[in-house]
Amino acid sequence: MDEFLDAAVAEAAAGLQEGGIPVGSVLVHEGKIIGRGHNLRVQRGSAILHGEMDALENAGRLPATVYSQSVLYTTLSPCAMCSGAILLYGIRHVVVGENVTFRGEETLLRERGVRVDVVQDPRCIEMMRQFIAANPTLWNEDIGV
Amino acid sequence: MDEFLDAAVAEAAAGLQEGGIPVGSVLVHEGKIIGRGHNLRVQRGSAILHGEMDALENAGRLPATVYSQSVLYTTLSPCAMCSGAILLYGIRHVVVGENVTFRGEETLLRERGVRVDVVQDPRCIEMMRQFIAANPTLWNEDIGV
Repeated sequence: MDEFLDAAVAEAAAGLQEGGIPVGSVLVHEGKIIGRGHNLRVQRGSAILHGEMDALENAGRLPATVYSQSVLYTTLSPCAMCSGAILLYGIRHVVVGENVTFRGEETLLRERGVRVDVVQDPRCIEMMRQFIAANPTLWNEDIGV
Repeated sequence: MDEFLDAAVAEAAAGLQEGGIPVGSVLVHEGKIIGRGHNLRVQRGSAILHGEMDALENAGRLPATVYSQSVLYTTLSPCAMCSGAILLYGIRHVVVGENVTFRGEETLLRERGVRVDVVQDPRCIEMMRQFIAANPTLWNEDIGV
């Protein structure tokens, strides 16, 4: 088990506890978590705070050199918005918990030179599977469907 | 002159007044502004609140049908993050104030079927030109350079 993926899973679980969509993320620089977050659509009525976006926001304003040496961990395959943020900031490596329940812009990321590792973590898959089955409308809203 | 582009320019000017990066945006649905915003990197120490993102956030949680019938106005060509948000939500039409000082992901947007109109508004160009000349480091931070 990867401690950083574990931290992203813990963020997702915290979001679920709050009544939110269970996607979590951490930004890791030189072996340390510098930002962590989870989806806040429900909790804050937010259209932009996906897990990855919240982790980037909580990491604060950073120079490009930090992003380029960082790894973003996320429990779910990043959507177009979060993938765009990854590209904007030149993050070169993304570790994805799973892409079974949703597949984002992995192809675009790889085309642009980002390393994308999909680990198919059973915890991530199960959390999303149950959530989507119980909240299909909310989930569709989160991915613009 | 387009009243919606004018509203986006007013947002950019408000951001500049606050000491921020002068990029503004409005989301327009059926001829009415339903969200407006501007870049808040400086004001809120935000890594994700570009003008377009702030407008989407201020529009609140919306069903996909609203986004698909909306037009996003932005004073500056949308970066990868903001373009990703446009793709996530299926916004089909973007009006861009200018792409002289910065050119974002217009090609990607068009490849995905989004109509992108670039109007090269002299107010937008001049505001960004002056801002970038006076604040090159801050501007680079905003675009991940």
